[in-house]
Amino acid sequence: MSKKQEIIDRTYELFSRYGDALSLSAIANATSIKKSSLYAHFDSKDHLLFHVIDLELQKFDQATLDVLKTSDSTDLKKTVSDFYYFILYYFNDPTKLVFWKRCMLMSEGPLKKKVEETHMKIHQRNIEYITTLYIDYAKTNDLDEKNVDIFRHSFMVLLLGTLYSLFVFEHRVTPYDHSFHIFWKGVQQHLHKNSLSRERL
Amino acid sequence: MSKKQEIIDRTYELFSRYGDALSLSAIANATSIKKSSLYAHFDSKDHLLFHVIDLELQKFDQATLDVLKTSDSTDLKKTVSDFYYFILYYFNDPTKLVFWKRCMLMSEGPLKKKVEETHMKIHQRNIEYITTLYIDYAKTNDLDEKNVDIFRHSFMVLLLGTLYSLFVFEHRVTPYDHSFHIFWKGVQQHLHKNSLSRERL
Repeated sequence: MSKKQEIIDRTYELFSRYGDALSLSAIANATSIKKSSLYAHFDSKDHLLFHVIDLELQKFDQATLDVLKTSDSTDLKKTVSDFYYFILYYFNDPTKLVFWKRCMLMSEGPLKKKVEETHMKIHQRNIEYITTLYIDYAKTNDLDEKNVDIFRHSFMVLLLGTLYSLFVFEHRVTPYDHSFHIFWKGVQQHLHKNSLSRERL
Repeated sequence: MSKKQEIIDRTYELFSRYGDALSLSAIANATSIKKSSLYAHFDSKDHLLFHVIDLELQKFDQATLDVLKTSDSTDLKKTVSDFYYFILYYFNDPTKLVFWKRCMLMSEGPLKKKVEETHMKIHQRNIEYITTLYIDYAKTNDLDEKNVDIFRHSFMVLLLGTLYSLFVFEHRVTPYDHSFHIFWKGVQQHLHKNSLSRERL
């Protein structure tokens, strides 16, 4: 393993444990890597941390893209369900879960801003992809196309609620399957062409 | 206003802005309150911060209890919907929203642990209350009593997803109404007595 790769791997673990309070000295102390060796590869703590976080975000980016691209674009239920279960399985790794939790808990500053921007770009791309499928699917499945924003928002609430409860309880449990089914059945009922017009909303 | 109340009010604002990185010196510097005066009322930064956070948690505790106690215990839909909208309106105050966001983003340590324990106790009490209503409601409304854990978990995912997206986007928007309706309609479909037995799950 190259020195650079060793620095990256150890920082991944240390960041998962201590978050962005981590200093270059702490990394040097906790490993057999000399501070001068850290500086040979990275200008600053923020440079190193962003590199490590960005690698993880790129992996996530590619993995979600793969899920979406290999899904059947005419089958909305299968696509959102594949995406949902992908998220559950992706965070079934305790170190990864804690790493992402740390990413969400960074203190204010340029590093946090950069991480949030990168993360938001991936999130937006995924959500846009799914909402495009919604519009096509709605046309032939008696859902109302005009409800696309409601669909997008509610799927986001489901995803964020799932992630947040994974972060709080730190384990995957079967009830998540049911949360997805409740969401999907609610979508079919509530976003049906004739449903919203009948209601006071 | 008493000196103690002034300290509490200013700390509330400062904690909302800077989180638990805040020191007693920073509080003294940002206000006209002398450090000796801070120490006259609070032994330490953690003592002061916990006092301020605990006051907010007690307010939330009382407010949620009021919502649940005044609700019609035979009408599960109205109770969960009242509770859901209470949460939306409660966090419709930007300072309060940011204050709670800070509570969720504290660094590891005894203060964070104490805050989490207090918060979890309130959360558990509320969720238990609602799941008790589910069991009674299920008996007379063709829902399956055995699905109480699924109901509890899915309502928690909805609440956490809503809170998390309020934290990310920092404003209340109408789609939340729809997220609730999708949840409720999904519950009626998915937790129906004859529903789960018919499915592969």
